[in-house]
Amino acid sequence: MSRREVQPEPGEAMPRQAGTRAIITLLSDFGVRDEYAACLKGVILGLNPRAVLVDLTHAVPPQDIRSGAFVLAGAAAYFPPGTIHLAVVDPGVGTGRRGLAAYGRRQFWVGPDNGLFHLIFAGRPELKMVSLENPDYFLPQVSPTFHGRDLFAPVAAHLSLGLELGRLGPPLTDPVRLPWPEPSVTAALIRGEIIHVDRFGNLVSNIAAGVLHAWLQGAENKFQLQVGRRTLTRLGRTYGEAPPGELLALVGSHGYLEIACAGGSAAVRLQAGTGLSVAVRRGG
Amino acid sequence: MSRREVQPEPGEAMPRQAGTRAIITLLSDFGVRDEYAACLKGVILGLNPRAVLVDLTHAVPPQDIRSGAFVLAGAAAYFPPGTIHLAVVDPGVGTGRRGLAAYGRRQFWVGPDNGLFHLIFAGRPELKMVSLENPDYFLPQVSPTFHGRDLFAPVAAHLSLGLELGRLGPPLTDPVRLPWPEPSVTAALIRGEIIHVDRFGNLVSNIAAGVLHAWLQGAENKFQLQVGRRTLTRLGRTYGEAPPGELLALVGSHGYLEIACAGGSAAVRLQAGTGLSVAVRRGG
Amino acid sequence: MSRREVQPEPGEAMPRQAGTRAIITLLSDFGVRDEYAACLKGVILGLNPRAVLVDLTHAVPPQDIRSGAFVLAGAAAYFPPGTIHLAVVDPGVGTGRRGLAAYGRRQFWVGPDNGLFHLIFAGRPELKMVSLENPDYFLPQVSPTFHGRDLFAPVAAHLSLGLELGRLGPPLTDPVRLPWPEPSVTAALIRGEIIHVDRFGNLVSNIAAGVLHAWLQGAENKFQLQVGRRTLTRLGRTYGEAPPGELLALVGSHGYLEIACAGGSAAVRLQAGTGLSVAVRRGG
Repeated sequence: MSRREVQPEPGEAMPRQAGTRAIITLLSDFGVRDEYAACLKGVILGLNPRAVLVDLTHAVPPQDIRSGAFVLAGAAAYFPPGTIHLAVVDPGVGTGRRGLAAYGRRQFWVGPDNGLFHLIFAGRPELKMVSLENPDYFLPQVSPTFHGRDLFAPVAAHLSLGLELGRLGPPLTDPVRLPWPEPSVTAALIRGEIIHVDRFGNLVSNIAAGVLHAWLQGAENKFQLQVGRRTLTRLGRTYGEAPPGELLALVGSHGYLEIACAGGSAAVRLQAGTGLSVAVRRGG
Repeated sequence: MSRREVQPEPGEAMPRQAGTRAIITLLSDFGVRDEYAACLKGVILGLNPRAVLVDLTHAVPPQDIRSGAFVLAGAAAYFPPGTIHLAVVDPGVGTGRRGLAAYGRRQFWVGPDNGLFHLIFAGRPELKMVSLENPDYFLPQVSPTFHGRDLFAPVAAHLSLGLELGRLGPPLTDPVRLPWPEPSVTAALIRGEIIHVDRFGNLVSNIAAGVLHAWLQGAENKFQLQVGRRTLTRLGRTYGEAPPGELLALVGSHGYLEIACAGGSAAVRLQAGTGLSVAVRRGG
Repeated sequence: MSRREVQPEPGEAMPRQAGTRAIITLLSDFGVRDEYAACLKGVILGLNPRAVLVDLTHAVPPQDIRSGAFVLAGAAAYFPPGTIHLAVVDPGVGTGRRGLAAYGRRQFWVGPDNGLFHLIFAGRPELKMVSLENPDYFLPQVSPTFHGRDLFAPVAAHLSLGLELGRLGPPLTDPVRLPWPEPSVTAALIRGEIIHVDRFGNLVSNIAAGVLHAWLQGAENKFQLQVGRRTLTRLGRTYGEAPPGELLALVGSHGYLEIACAGGSAAVRLQAGTGLSVAVRRGG
């Protein structure tokens, strides 16, 4: 690391040497078998020894931007204002895709401009966003295969030291959008699909709690969910309320309608995964 | 998070904004693919930015309370006094099961009252324990499916800020006990079973070192261990002392009699797992 | 933990109670299912509550010293001076193998003397190294099966508090060397082999970027890589520049020639792993 990275820059109030206790979260598809995630942490701590590092996950399926976007959005809401989220699922590393840093929802966002932040940025005009083009805040040598370590990690560290967003590059106004399946809502039914399978085998749909309850208008007792050839007729509140082995529908902690299996895995039970269609209707 | 959570409460000496450097460990069956574990950390750091977070494990098999209890007890002994252990293996979340916080062994314990702390609490009359019933110390919205995030994490954070246990709810005097297999000891033999298989394939039994050595009365050279159809005749000291590929019995770092395979996996070698019976006898 | 461990020793300038913010990294083959890695952290934080703990990985394949050595060397270069690297892949625990602590490359190294630090120490005469023989800096009870927890972790913690290396034991001048395959370089070709497969299925060879470019002497356009029965004729810069599913050769972020598959896994595509031979020739 060159001296440039560790010396205070004119115009920055924050003394860099001391560092600040900002939280920096890390999300990636690096896994934990290799040293990739650890390299990011070494780079950050070299620049800001007082940064508080928290792993969101490094187990995003390789190059699965949509899965990364879902986990990031689910976690970020529970972190305090000022948190810096460094997210790297980056199949296009080293090609023309841009890097970005942004401030919105009172938190910071750093990573590739490939849709990974789509759920965060959607419908937020008050967002400030820049394209990462100022090499003063990168490592001196930027490898074409590992921008997480050489570019995004040092940028996150500099933000944690109080650097102004505008120093990093010119405004970016057209971030890449992620194709995201929205549920279709008619008077007769809501049609959605499974977008995430969690560790317990719960099948999480794209039907948000708000959409569901607005549509049911209090008639939760007439709820019917069709999934494959099965029909579930009860909207439960919690996993433990069905007999062991039985399927149930409920609004899970993500805030979406999901299908669970009491004491087991709905994914195994239904032999199902992401992409499966589900339909909510009003019953009898 | 409401202002209620981040403002000092009357009667608390500790200034909350500053936070304290208390250690909070986390154990769960959440895995690391989803954002569940990270949400707990975000909630805690939002309340106490100076908390020191340490993962015990998030790879407890889903809903396996006994396995979680074993790992928790093994790790906790190596953490300093004052450590707060937040443990969530919680198949009964959202049903009638209580939440608890306790102080004993000079450490704090927070999680569901379902036996997860059984090995910690067993035979400790000096324990202080409360039922978590005061919503002032929960998140403003408690989801019926994720008490780890909405209830246990904020409670652990408040304890790390110096909150008195009694503020969290009324005393709890009858915590749920976990069915735990105890070895049977007679003059002729000790009969036990495998209760844990570790990452190396070591088969850990429920026969504690103290029980074993008291029974052998110094006659370690007459040790015989029967496991399936095999008989091991030597009680070793360490994994490296048997020839590669050979099975050996020894007291492992958990403090229990275990069966290992030098340079390999005893679980693979014996095609065995938890529940397998073992018997210690005196040999010729 | 005895009082001995937590009281300042005469001759040490650093007040131990307060602790210091030194970074301690952890690398092991413990996995994350058991409490083994967490125990090391508890021991360290008990001695130095201000230590900053960073996991490199705990997913080194069981007892695979070479793989651990590779990941350690890859990560360490990105950590700041003064970092303490605690690495435990230790099939010989409890036998005659020595433990070591060392200072070199402006960082500290603690672990078994079995070749795990070979890539770090190779060709560095300025290294200071000692054999860990002073039990004053171990836990009071050292289990014969878990030196990571009972010996290496407390030693790393004491170093983080400013302990002088020489206090830990006598000089060690002949550390164990790890058999490491070096590529063979002739005028006609470089012959190497795959030494690591990463999470993405990239096949990393032992041919360093420096060796490769010196040999090609600027004739990168004549590059030919033979791997199994295939010949790759282009040395790429980054994963995204080949069409999806196509194999490409490039210098990866480790700094070695590797074989990747755009948008997929070269290991799966070639059904190949460590040990596979590769040969670089001049084409055209």
